[in-house]
Amino acid sequence: MWQHKTPGIPDELFERVDDVPITKEEVRVIQISKARLSSGQTVYDVGCGSGSISIEAAHQVGSTGKVFSIDIDPNAVELTKKNLEKFQISNVSVILGNAMQKISELPIADAIFIGGTGGETAEIIKLCESKLKQGGRIVIGTILVETLYSVLNIIEKLSFSSVDIIQITISKSRKTSTGTMFLARNPVTIISATKI
Amino acid sequence: MWQHKTPGIPDELFERVDDVPITKEEVRVIQISKARLSSGQTVYDVGCGSGSISIEAAHQVGSTGKVFSIDIDPNAVELTKKNLEKFQISNVSVILGNAMQKISELPIADAIFIGGTGGETAEIIKLCESKLKQGGRIVIGTILVETLYSVLNIIEKLSFSSVDIIQITISKSRKTSTGTMFLARNPVTIISATKI
Repeated sequence: MWQHKTPGIPDELFERVDDVPITKEEVRVIQISKARLSSGQTVYDVGCGSGSISIEAAHQVGSTGKVFSIDIDPNAVELTKKNLEKFQISNVSVILGNAMQKISELPIADAIFIGGTGGETAEIIKLCESKLKQGGRIVIGTILVETLYSVLNIIEKLSFSSVDIIQITISKSRKTSTGTMFLARNPVTIISATKI
Repeated sequence: MWQHKTPGIPDELFERVDDVPITKEEVRVIQISKARLSSGQTVYDVGCGSGSISIEAAHQVGSTGKVFSIDIDPNAVELTKKNLEKFQISNVSVILGNAMQKISELPIADAIFIGGTGGETAEIIKLCESKLKQGGRIVIGTILVETLYSVLNIIEKLSFSSVDIIQITISKSRKTSTGTMFLARNPVTIISATKI
């Protein structure tokens, strides 16, 4: 379904439903790049939403790698499964449930994406740190100021180095009757770091 | 040197000189993703600067692929060569000279990055269109309003479909004595399209 080596599947190729968020193409490729993935790795996608990050990560880690996608919302889990089928991905396990409980049961990870924390940011990041291999990467995408504040507060107290924080604002062009304008999207902040 | 499958080599790993621009990590991964690269492809990097796009593209197309990097500035050509050596890349040819003349001599391409046009935007895009395979991708990064205007003017007159125009603004965090702030970088506009 996606024949290219590079990440960046266009948003419109994913199945969508109204109340489940998707990480937009350009933000998604930056998140995937910050995880520094390799073949054969084990990856978590915590708060997988539509499954777009899981699918891109699954392509990068390949058939010898494994992705675990967790969401507490049954609609997200169902949508992720639909997208996995659409993209013919077989190295992703989709898990419905509370992240704190489900992450505990997973094998240790090379990279962890956090896209949603349901307010339990500090606890989830602490747990993820304990599940990451040495040299493993954590990549957290935040929309909410409160989540960003919680991440900044906790991440420096844990065993992470090279903490990198960027804010991305993407505008997409739109044709009007008289010319080309840009429509801004909301800024997204991405925090990434390496487990010491 | 870069062992990961994902693009997004940190900027600080590249050799740099003062007057040769580098496409910053986050903008670079978006450009690479918009090119939709696969193993074995032939790629041009027109206005290669420090060579960062060439190096990421070389990783994606692999040893069966080929990248041609062109710049009119001898300092850029020298710096690109230095970076190719640093990253132990052998599938890139670096070419010093005028893009219009040098592109004419190259084999047809699957993807073309344009990072600089020296004011000859329309002519270079026209020539690149003629050198792209059907289904091939063009990805143009612009900083200047004048270049963006020229690209918009010419691209719709040529055999391109799925023209996508995005503007990206990245801010990087900086620690101050009292907290964490964001420092904005200049916006970059990326135009990408598929050769019909």
